[in-house]
Amino acid sequence: MARAEVALICYESSDGAVMEANNEKMHKLTHFRLCPYSRSIRVLLAELGLQVEAVEEQPWDMSLSFLQLNPAGELPVLEIDAGPILCGTYSISEYVAEELKRHPVDGLSVPLFPGTREERAEVRRLVDWFHGKFDREVTRELLYEKVYARLQPGMSGHSPDADIMRAVRANLRYHLSYIGYLAHGRRWLAGEDLSFADIAAAAHLSSIDYFDEVPWEDYPQAKDWYARIKSRPAFRVVLADRIPGSPPPRHYTDLDF
Amino acid sequence: MARAEVALICYESSDGAVMEANNEKMHKLTHFRLCPYSRSIRVLLAELGLQVEAVEEQPWDMSLSFLQLNPAGELPVLEIDAGPILCGTYSISEYVAEELKRHPVDGLSVPLFPGTREERAEVRRLVDWFHGKFDREVTRELLYEKVYARLQPGMSGHSPDADIMRAVRANLRYHLSYIGYLAHGRRWLAGEDLSFADIAAAAHLSSIDYFDEVPWEDYPQAKDWYARIKSRPAFRVVLADRIPGSPPPRHYTDLDF
Repeated sequence: MARAEVALICYESSDGAVMEANNEKMHKLTHFRLCPYSRSIRVLLAELGLQVEAVEEQPWDMSLSFLQLNPAGELPVLEIDAGPILCGTYSISEYVAEELKRHPVDGLSVPLFPGTREERAEVRRLVDWFHGKFDREVTRELLYEKVYARLQPGMSGHSPDADIMRAVRANLRYHLSYIGYLAHGRRWLAGEDLSFADIAAAAHLSSIDYFDEVPWEDYPQAKDWYARIKSRPAFRVVLADRIPGSPPPRHYTDLDF
Repeated sequence: MARAEVALICYESSDGAVMEANNEKMHKLTHFRLCPYSRSIRVLLAELGLQVEAVEEQPWDMSLSFLQLNPAGELPVLEIDAGPILCGTYSISEYVAEELKRHPVDGLSVPLFPGTREERAEVRRLVDWFHGKFDREVTRELLYEKVYARLQPGMSGHSPDADIMRAVRANLRYHLSYIGYLAHGRRWLAGEDLSFADIAAAAHLSSIDYFDEVPWEDYPQAKDWYARIKSRPAFRVVLADRIPGSPPPRHYTDLDF
């Protein structure tokens, strides 16, 4: 379980802390523990067994040094050792996919964009769905209302906007039924193979599940799919995340929730 | 100028109208004339000399048949003749790039993602910047306030929200200075070669320029870059678009603006 162990060290580091799993030079990932984009890349890297130095950046109060690294001010950023600085999930995931194509990893069961051209197009459609549409309609608003807003200087008294939360919860149900529809007809969301679409979708749901906002019982097919990806060792990298002062519900880490 | 002519027929079609440039079977593109995502794909297809049957869909009032085609309810959608249905710019652009790699088009000067792995990562970072960040901070809000809102049933009296427009204009200046910074150090935005990053950026700016919202004179380097991409024959596909009742400023189609 070396992968999982490496990952476990990773997210138990506090802000700015550095994971030192060994003495090799390592790639460096700047992320935030609840950021769904960061989570999708952290799970991906764990699936690949890739050790990274993990550093956290606070989305609601970004440092000048981070903005110099990525002027878009968006997470995650992956600094390849003696290589390029990759900003954002799109650039990172496609770069890693190109690397895997050039240098396949023996026994690796997780091609990001598997199958034929048509199948890869379906994976990308769904990555876009979750990192684009789902984020706009659910995750972005929920994280702001539940976490980012109150952590901003002088806004500790912020309480979630009831209208926004109502809209977010309604949107989430629509997305859960779509996930259930996909998971009913296919083994994984984009087809027979696990792909980056599953990782992206699970990254968003895990961020929301931390706040017990996912009505799993009403969507058994989505729940079954999530239970399968949640039980993968690589997923432990996100399940052990904690926000000081707001623990997750008991089922958050329960693999048989 | 066959490409440009084909393109010209394309956007002069009214809603639902079909372009019939020849009797071949054709791919079908569902788009909206001011949608920046649609524009980036329309320019790309014109650069490739690819003839498509163009059909318009109204983003503020989508048809059931379109939602069945793309449940995400997002434009554009490219239906490949005897091939897959590609939803969204991410899926379409990467599919077309894979096709070009398999079947290079003689004399074609526009690889979407040119160069080395590192250079392709930079192209994707910037595509993400414009189709992601720029859209959220500028184009999406501006199009809603200026067009989509008032075209919705019962909202013909809508006038743009002053606070939102002020924020959008401030954001736009920030993005224009970044474009100028990129265009100053490089021939095109992502490097020495034209790429899909230039096409995506120009697609957003062209949608905004239609409403005379781009302070070009304050950003000469961004203006010089835009003048270069605007003068390409393929770009005519978007420069001839018109919205009934709101003509563009004179400089919109002027290649020496």
